[in-house]
Amino acid sequence: MAPDVRERVFPAARIARIEEIAEVVGFLSEFDSDASRRVLSEADVLVTGWGAPFIDAAVLDAAPRLTAVLHSAGTIKPFLSDDVLERGIRVSTAASANAVPVAEYTAAMIVLANKKVLPIAARYLALREEFDVEAAFPGMGNYDKRIGIVGASKIGRKVIELLRVYELDVVVYDPYLSEDDAEGLGVEAVGLDELLSTSDVVSVHAPSLPATHGLIDARGIGLMRAGATLLNTARGEIIDQEALTERVLAGELFAILDVSTPWVLAADHPLYGHEHVLLTPHVAGSLGVELGRLADVVHDELQRLVDGRDLAHEVEADRLSITA
Amino acid sequence: MAPDVRERVFPAARIARIEEIAEVVGFLSEFDSDASRRVLSEADVLVTGWGAPFIDAAVLDAAPRLTAVLHSAGTIKPFLSDDVLERGIRVSTAASANAVPVAEYTAAMIVLANKKVLPIAARYLALREEFDVEAAFPGMGNYDKRIGIVGASKIGRKVIELLRVYELDVVVYDPYLSEDDAEGLGVEAVGLDELLSTSDVVSVHAPSLPATHGLIDARGIGLMRAGATLLNTARGEIIDQEALTERVLAGELFAILDVSTPWVLAADHPLYGHEHVLLTPHVAGSLGVELGRLADVVHDELQRLVDGRDLAHEVEADRLSITA
Repeated sequence: MAPDVRERVFPAARIARIEEIAEVVGFLSEFDSDASRRVLSEADVLVTGWGAPFIDAAVLDAAPRLTAVLHSAGTIKPFLSDDVLERGIRVSTAASANAVPVAEYTAAMIVLANKKVLPIAARYLALREEFDVEAAFPGMGNYDKRIGIVGASKIGRKVIELLRVYELDVVVYDPYLSEDDAEGLGVEAVGLDELLSTSDVVSVHAPSLPATHGLIDARGIGLMRAGATLLNTARGEIIDQEALTERVLAGELFAILDVSTPWVLAADHPLYGHEHVLLTPHVAGSLGVELGRLADVVHDELQRLVDGRDLAHEVEADRLSITA
Repeated sequence: MAPDVRERVFPAARIARIEEIAEVVGFLSEFDSDASRRVLSEADVLVTGWGAPFIDAAVLDAAPRLTAVLHSAGTIKPFLSDDVLERGIRVSTAASANAVPVAEYTAAMIVLANKKVLPIAARYLALREEFDVEAAFPGMGNYDKRIGIVGASKIGRKVIELLRVYELDVVVYDPYLSEDDAEGLGVEAVGLDELLSTSDVVSVHAPSLPATHGLIDARGIGLMRAGATLLNTARGEIIDQEALTERVLAGELFAILDVSTPWVLAADHPLYGHEHVLLTPHVAGSLGVELGRLADVVHDELQRLVDGRDLAHEVEADRLSITA
């Protein structure tokens, strides 16, 4: 992984804990140098993370002892050629752990969105006096509300789990989710149009794939109910941002965006500072102490390998094509 | 209850539902007029709510058929003389339902507070470019964090329930909570000083009673860890707001305040617009569609009376002295 990532996810104290159960033969951020090749030749396990170089057949040829790749982040596709799984090397990902903070951010924001808490706070700051919040934001509150989850990804499923204790009606759209699976999650599977036109909060948890770019297009944005909130922690490209902006500026929709197109909006973009909008700079994912959760997952997986037990988060080859 | 409260909590559609199971003999906002006395003389049940007049012995004398008081809000003390329970009249309160939105607001804010999401959003809005959030807010994130709940009230207990699915260490301070009760809640009971000095978020859920005014005084505020957040949805008087303000302005503490002293801060108060502060105008409680939850509780209790079943939320006389 990238050296700065290693320092953040695996600081010295965590490396020391790993050394209690395994020998650390080296720290790599590329696979091409002679030094890296020597490390590869000795490695039984690779621990990877953000910024890791691609593992292709040549890398595998240089690592004849390799039996497992433990990835300390979410998305593994950019790092792995098909050869890895085809050669029987086991792959584990901390994607479930990495999903936790995004789902936590999302569940918190859903509660605040239904109650219009942040728009109310913005207006209170502007007015500095009491005002009739129920008249200002009709239908505010968390009761008898519908939440639409777009994408039953690891994150989407974790959001559903976190919302279970709330008195909210949760529906989900995912072309790969069967009605039985939805029932198992305790939610109703609906079509995307129905989700968009009936939900009070629409939360995007689709993977960033060519097929999902523009998934919520101008027509879809147009279906959303007045007063509804679009919550996006996935990728800006999944929604038609211009159409969203138009309806937000018309006072019809609310938006909570941890992602945008481009990655940082131009300084004069009208979404900045709008009462109906919260913009955060890509912070829903694992950051700060949450990186410790990723390191803990890798540590536990390594312990499982040492003990000869099954991995807890092994990647199945047949899921790879529909995940990011 | 006050006429505007009745219109908000029991709009015509909900009154119509009540009339399916009981006869509505009148709508009162005082007990003194001849018209009110006539209604009282016929009433088996009083449905009360915010702004209800006090029920004393004289009111009870005027209501010889009265067997139950169903309160559609939280706090019942200001409305009831001891005579009510002493005469064997059953009292039910929607306090548990009224606790739900406060607890939901709190749990959402705890997650955001640990991650410093709102201060980050404020800075992002000011800078309009990416910045190193981990360097700006050291220790940010939801993992290995301690939450201190001050007061195992209905709200405090509901917060604990909502947090159960998070990987957070929750401690509670309540002079009336035994270690066994705390264990039953799945949390550790600690002293107030220990709570204040070890928690990353301190959330206030003590009742507003003379004994709790100034409960978290200047010394207590001084015990809080740098980077911690004080979250108050209870009453401003419970904390030393000046001491809190001082430490916030020094950059040491964060604050999320749904209540303040006075009820609305002076327009030039330095907490307004501070990057470390979110002020909301008393919106954590039941508002908007959440009032429907209160009406639903009263409706269910009335159905139980009609069916001759026990009330689900009956007030026990011996709890009254320590609740608000």
